[in-house]
Amino acid sequence: MASMTHCSGIKRRLTRQVAIGPVKVGGGAPISVQSMIKARPEDRRETARQIRDLEAVGCDIVRIAVPNMDAVRTLAAVRKKARIPLEADIHFSPQLALASIAAGADAIRLNPGNMSDQVRIAEICRRCRARRIPIRVGMNSGSAVPRKGGVPVKRARNADTAAMMVRQALAFCKMLENCGFHAIMMSLKAADVLSTVRAYRMAAERCDYPFHLGVTATGIPPDAVVKSALGIGSLLLAGIGDTIRVSLTAPPIDEIKVARSILRAVGVRVPGVEVLACPTCGRTEFDVAGVAREVENRLRGVKRPVRVAVMGCIVNGPGEAAECDVGVAGGKGESVLFKKGKVVKRLRPDAIVNTLVREVRILCGDD
Amino acid sequence: MASMTHCSGIKRRLTRQVAIGPVKVGGGAPISVQSMIKARPEDRRETARQIRDLEAVGCDIVRIAVPNMDAVRTLAAVRKKARIPLEADIHFSPQLALASIAAGADAIRLNPGNMSDQVRIAEICRRCRARRIPIRVGMNSGSAVPRKGGVPVKRARNADTAAMMVRQALAFCKMLENCGFHAIMMSLKAADVLSTVRAYRMAAERCDYPFHLGVTATGIPPDAVVKSALGIGSLLLAGIGDTIRVSLTAPPIDEIKVARSILRAVGVRVPGVEVLACPTCGRTEFDVAGVAREVENRLRGVKRPVRVAVMGCIVNGPGEAAECDVGVAGGKGESVLFKKGKVVKRLRPDAIVNTLVREVRILCGDD
Repeated sequence: MASMTHCSGIKRRLTRQVAIGPVKVGGGAPISVQSMIKARPEDRRETARQIRDLEAVGCDIVRIAVPNMDAVRTLAAVRKKARIPLEADIHFSPQLALASIAAGADAIRLNPGNMSDQVRIAEICRRCRARRIPIRVGMNSGSAVPRKGGVPVKRARNADTAAMMVRQALAFCKMLENCGFHAIMMSLKAADVLSTVRAYRMAAERCDYPFHLGVTATGIPPDAVVKSALGIGSLLLAGIGDTIRVSLTAPPIDEIKVARSILRAVGVRVPGVEVLACPTCGRTEFDVAGVAREVENRLRGVKRPVRVAVMGCIVNGPGEAAECDVGVAGGKGESVLFKKGKVVKRLRPDAIVNTLVREVRILCGDD
Repeated sequence: MASMTHCSGIKRRLTRQVAIGPVKVGGGAPISVQSMIKARPEDRRETARQIRDLEAVGCDIVRIAVPNMDAVRTLAAVRKKARIPLEADIHFSPQLALASIAAGADAIRLNPGNMSDQVRIAEICRRCRARRIPIRVGMNSGSAVPRKGGVPVKRARNADTAAMMVRQALAFCKMLENCGFHAIMMSLKAADVLSTVRAYRMAAERCDYPFHLGVTATGIPPDAVVKSALGIGSLLLAGIGDTIRVSLTAPPIDEIKVARSILRAVGVRVPGVEVLACPTCGRTEFDVAGVAREVENRLRGVKRPVRVAVMGCIVNGPGEAAECDVGVAGGKGESVLFKKGKVVKRLRPDAIVNTLVREVRILCGDD
């Protein structure tokens, strides 16, 4: 579980709170990070392996696609062993939603774009309430269908994607509310940053449900990292967002790494080592990239939040890294070790990595 | 040169315009992208090679560190051959600034944190005016020094980094203005996103100089990509920023790739192929990551802005990618090819990559 608290002074949007297993979402709870299983639904072993990997890196919530009954059986099997809450991702089928609830899902995601049978939805609400699990109203731009009087109509050219998503998501919430169901989270993911940000901002003014933030179909890094960081991060900077999922066409644990990096960037205290490094230039006196990578790798297991700086020269080095716990800046022949912006020692180039690693371990009480 | 125009409807901050060689900055000019040479100052061959690489990928402005007279000679040598404007990066030394101007620099970056001799600065202004080149007032958090009555004082704990940077940068501008010099750009880079964003927003209300945006000492990807995307991107979303530099502890051309990705994410039309891809899940019917990477690699040379989608299943596929020129979505055994959100053809898995590549080439008139 995340031990993250906002320390940036950003005022967060006030929302209701829901619980996904032991993880609270909204209502002032720490911003949780989540990912999604990328195995075939029938592949229990790979599904279980990905869940364990995500638990090991401190993921808070895991989502599993449930496109068929094989997936329901996999969900039931992995639910018994997983320590982490599992959200079943449902499209089209109320039956699969009901089966997932029975199989032990800790939350259900429904897509307003492809489910509309009020009787079946009322039944889903009843079962969710009985098991005290929340529903995510998970809108995607790709399945947003413009309707007139309940009937789907052809989408206008240049339709306002954000407004359409918000309208449809809120209409779906209304249906749940009419069943007396309020344990709702909402997501409004578009395939572009601008529509995504506009949709969440618009919805933030029209309801008090907690938000699951994400940009969808971002693609492969670095493009995908850029879109997720900007979409999710700029909403967090505006105080909007209660749980986040970074979508990357990459392994699930990469999504957690980037999610954490976004939280750090908006001032949330996140466990683990953050390595700051200068971009290097003609002033650089040693292999900054190599040292930064090696320090990051060797300190991967550290849980405490620590900031380490690797700066190529003394022009801005110790100053820019004044907020870092420990750092090194290049000099002619020798580098300097600094702590909290103050130079404390000279270092030979071949001693840089070992010294930084040792200093961090001492800080963490491991040495 | 960039052929980028804002098509996102974001209202840009009104600024003066300066020219770095043929590249206009501010005053409504397209947002330019820049990078920095990472070779040793005496290494003319490697410097020239990195400049050629950056020209080839469409970088607009290149910066070169000038820490000594070797670097001035390198600058003079590469200036003769480069087609791209070169900005000399100066710290501490007015002499190196004057020598760089004489060597043919197209712009000079001065750091208010380490230059203060008014007589020498007046001389730099005269020479810049004579050669019609602008000065970037390039403030970094690392060299921001609090002063009282002109005298540096010890930095207070919890000092407001952003306010201090803005104050010092504007005081330096005042010095240039007193010399009748107004061809100024400004940058206010901190090592954290929050201070960086606050500094630029604050300065935007207090002057009309064009801004060079960047976050400094971001480190290695993906952390560095997250910080740059959020820092630079959220300012661009607010209409602030005229030229951008992504600092990565990575090769210069990677910085241009990420810079373009940020511009695309805020709705700027950028040349080249953008590949959207779903993050994959239990519904995925083919190797999305592999196809996305291969399509991106094979279409690297395309100059026209084209959007290609690679979606694992048909749930949101064609819908989410409705804004894409062409795309593929997975299905059982067969996938579908779609254009502008409409399914046009069925595809066998082994035909996906070749079909997408061919469709893009046809679109661009290359086939």
